[in-house]
Amino acid sequence: MAKEITSRDKDYAQWYNDLVLKGELADYTAVRGCMVIKPHGFALWENMRDQLDKMFKATGHVNAYFPLFIPKSFLSREAAHVEGFAKECAVVTHYRLKNDPNGNGVIVDPEAKLEEELIVRPTSETIIWNSYKDWIQSYRDLPLLINQWANVVRWEMRTRLFLRTAEFLWQEGHTAHATAAEAIAETRQMLDIYATFAEEWMALPVIKGVKTASERFAGAEDTYCIEALMQDGKALQAGTSHFLGQNFAKAFDVKFSDKENKLDYVWATSWGVSTRLVGALVMAHSDDEGLVLPPKIAPLQVVIVPIYKGPEQKSQIDARVSELMAQLKKAGVRVKYDDSDNNRPGWKFAEYEMKGVPVRIALGARDLENNVVEVARRDTKEKKSISLDGLHETIVQLLDKIQQAMFDKARAYRDAHITKVDNWQDFEKTLDGEGGFISAHWDGTAETEESIKQKTKATIRCIPLNNPQEEGKCILTGKPSKERVLFARAY
Amino acid sequence: MAKEITSRDKDYAQWYNDLVLKGELADYTAVRGCMVIKPHGFALWENMRDQLDKMFKATGHVNAYFPLFIPKSFLSREAAHVEGFAKECAVVTHYRLKNDPNGNGVIVDPEAKLEEELIVRPTSETIIWNSYKDWIQSYRDLPLLINQWANVVRWEMRTRLFLRTAEFLWQEGHTAHATAAEAIAETRQMLDIYATFAEEWMALPVIKGVKTASERFAGAEDTYCIEALMQDGKALQAGTSHFLGQNFAKAFDVKFSDKENKLDYVWATSWGVSTRLVGALVMAHSDDEGLVLPPKIAPLQVVIVPIYKGPEQKSQIDARVSELMAQLKKAGVRVKYDDSDNNRPGWKFAEYEMKGVPVRIALGARDLENNVVEVARRDTKEKKSISLDGLHETIVQLLDKIQQAMFDKARAYRDAHITKVDNWQDFEKTLDGEGGFISAHWDGTAETEESIKQKTKATIRCIPLNNPQEEGKCILTGKPSKERVLFARAY
Repeated sequence: MAKEITSRDKDYAQWYNDLVLKGELADYTAVRGCMVIKPHGFALWENMRDQLDKMFKATGHVNAYFPLFIPKSFLSREAAHVEGFAKECAVVTHYRLKNDPNGNGVIVDPEAKLEEELIVRPTSETIIWNSYKDWIQSYRDLPLLINQWANVVRWEMRTRLFLRTAEFLWQEGHTAHATAAEAIAETRQMLDIYATFAEEWMALPVIKGVKTASERFAGAEDTYCIEALMQDGKALQAGTSHFLGQNFAKAFDVKFSDKENKLDYVWATSWGVSTRLVGALVMAHSDDEGLVLPPKIAPLQVVIVPIYKGPEQKSQIDARVSELMAQLKKAGVRVKYDDSDNNRPGWKFAEYEMKGVPVRIALGARDLENNVVEVARRDTKEKKSISLDGLHETIVQLLDKIQQAMFDKARAYRDAHITKVDNWQDFEKTLDGEGGFISAHWDGTAETEESIKQKTKATIRCIPLNNPQEEGKCILTGKPSKERVLFARAY
Repeated sequence: MAKEITSRDKDYAQWYNDLVLKGELADYTAVRGCMVIKPHGFALWENMRDQLDKMFKATGHVNAYFPLFIPKSFLSREAAHVEGFAKECAVVTHYRLKNDPNGNGVIVDPEAKLEEELIVRPTSETIIWNSYKDWIQSYRDLPLLINQWANVVRWEMRTRLFLRTAEFLWQEGHTAHATAAEAIAETRQMLDIYATFAEEWMALPVIKGVKTASERFAGAEDTYCIEALMQDGKALQAGTSHFLGQNFAKAFDVKFSDKENKLDYVWATSWGVSTRLVGALVMAHSDDEGLVLPPKIAPLQVVIVPIYKGPEQKSQIDARVSELMAQLKKAGVRVKYDDSDNNRPGWKFAEYEMKGVPVRIALGARDLENNVVEVARRDTKEKKSISLDGLHETIVQLLDKIQQAMFDKARAYRDAHITKVDNWQDFEKTLDGEGGFISAHWDGTAETEESIKQKTKATIRCIPLNNPQEEGKCILTGKPSKERVLFARAY
């Protein structure tokens, strides 16, 4: 009856794919590495996007929209940036097709070659800073606090639904400031917003930290990040916020005159989260029966399923449900009454479990006589018979309770999977065993970092903010270290 | 003091460009034909998008997101479609850049050529129907009512900010139905939604009609449209809704089994509006001092400017304004208090006039003594001294009044510019004189339509819905005609 899902124990990667496909979040397409985000997945992304957008606007940011295409030469302007982004990308070389003279559909018109190739944006720093050059002259034009919701393309060789696709949706904030201090404060503010969003809306506990030099965004002075833990013990970077220093201002010659009329380059930040967050959400909370979605961003929070024989019972149930629906909607609950007669209740139960609807209410004729309903929680699978009196209030409270319980469960799991390790043997053993974050000493060199990565596939996820200073020895080289960092295998 | 704008009388095209640039709606970029939508313009688009999105969802539609890229061969699947869309488009041929061995930045890696070129979507029927093939098997899967908000690219040779750009933002609805009747009803429903949106939200009166065969969307059986009139007497197509018959279902082999288990091809519609609407809004309402925006979609509805000498007067004004702001915000009004001391009140007045803010409130120390403010309407430029008592209610009413007045004004202009014409001489004279819509007889042939277009640049904008049937003679050929159609020169 229910759609088959591979269990997590059997094959975690396959379980994830099954969930995304059978939970109808996304589907493959005819274009390599590009997925279609299906209505259920897109509604989830919309709820995430709308909440983030509110938080951005509440902190003074405005939205704008910059071109999809970037002239090839722009990528080369910032030295580190070109190394990081100019490699795997979609290149537009022509602007016209024509009918194949041999009658086989259409071919690229060789006459219509662009003078300079255009790159489909992998990120927009260069095209945006080229505009900022025209928009910024004086300190009066600062700060400039702009965000963009857009699609971007990175030609990944190995793709996975939501987690790594050639095209994905994201937001990218690009701000310009008069001082380094102000830009750094902005970078940190946005990191805090991401962390708050992840924890309070996605029920996803995160560790805030700063990346090592080798893991920095191409062109950044510092990259801050939030790191989350998935149920297979692998980490996932859920958002980044970059302090770009004056690198892009210098590359695009963006100067401003301060109050004393002195010219200086502008200070910059950029920050982004993407549809990857949908993948993180799936992997952090779901189970072997399907998706488990946190109420605050679930497209549908409550589903009501009638159980009846014949039209008379049905109409009695309808009348009562109609009242309940009105009360729930008034309380701001996203609720659906599924009284379609195409499928039996059992089929519907499995279907809404698969889709991750947080609360299911089943209402039968007998229940109606007893003035009760059966309420099932998706997260714990607990079922209870609950009085119809004041049920809408009970449900509103239950949704809050589920949101909190999901966060607590994920945090308990995460906290149980941060292991302090002091030697190489334990490091490897922990990685191959329980996984999770490993808190260990590192000698601070890029060589050691790379060597550990080569040996184990583990990377330094971050140096946590407010990290306690502690003398120790690097787990690989034994050289002295001043603080522990967090290692993990990661998505 | 104020930014200079070319007057409409002097040069209408330049007036439009001045408004878009100096009203800070958009700007040119380094990429040919691609603009950046600046925060003020994007906020306008966001308000339009959010309202349309609500109307789509209220009629049962859901959002999804399909790939940016379309395999070249897909375009050839539907014969008419490829003729209409496969010509001027951005073609991705490579997926990698590499360092120039001569040290001059990056070059396209000739090793990284795609096996099949990808087209940046000019519209998404083909890629979407290729997915629908997998999603539709039975009548239970229908109707499928999906909308997408996306960027699209059409390589236009002559571009104009908002009106015709290589890349633009839009929404495209793509629905699938079990019967032709249901698909036609959907096509008409969406046309009605567009008309309601244009008239009630944009204060833009439109004529609903159907296109002639030559003006149809490539691949459609029928194209419905809404047509608006700009202040220079030219028409602008503000939205289209297409009945696609079974054309795309046949091209992509999408069949469903009905209740009797018989297989048939699915019936389709598609419908869209774009950022072009922002251009229409500018051209329909604005004047020689700047933008005039209808309150319902103006990013900012009310601006309050203090007029004071010294900090004591300022703090008295601040206190009163703070109360007023709270009342206005509570009433759902988008209001800003501009007490920045970078610029004088006169400069601010001109600036907010330029940006099209519907209502300006000026509040001086003397006013405060008299318990009044000066309220200025952007649309009529009328100024009135109004009591501070219950001012927020007065303002809410005024915003409604402005919305209605703008619509009435635009409708009066439009109605005064629909001219019945019965001979060729008057046709040409009207076109070159007052312009506007010309209601005239046409013999119904594509040849005559094309000939009129060649001679005058006027096209048949539409055959209005519920068009009265009336015998007459074609203005060009004198052949018999059964109804008048609407001609105009158009954007």
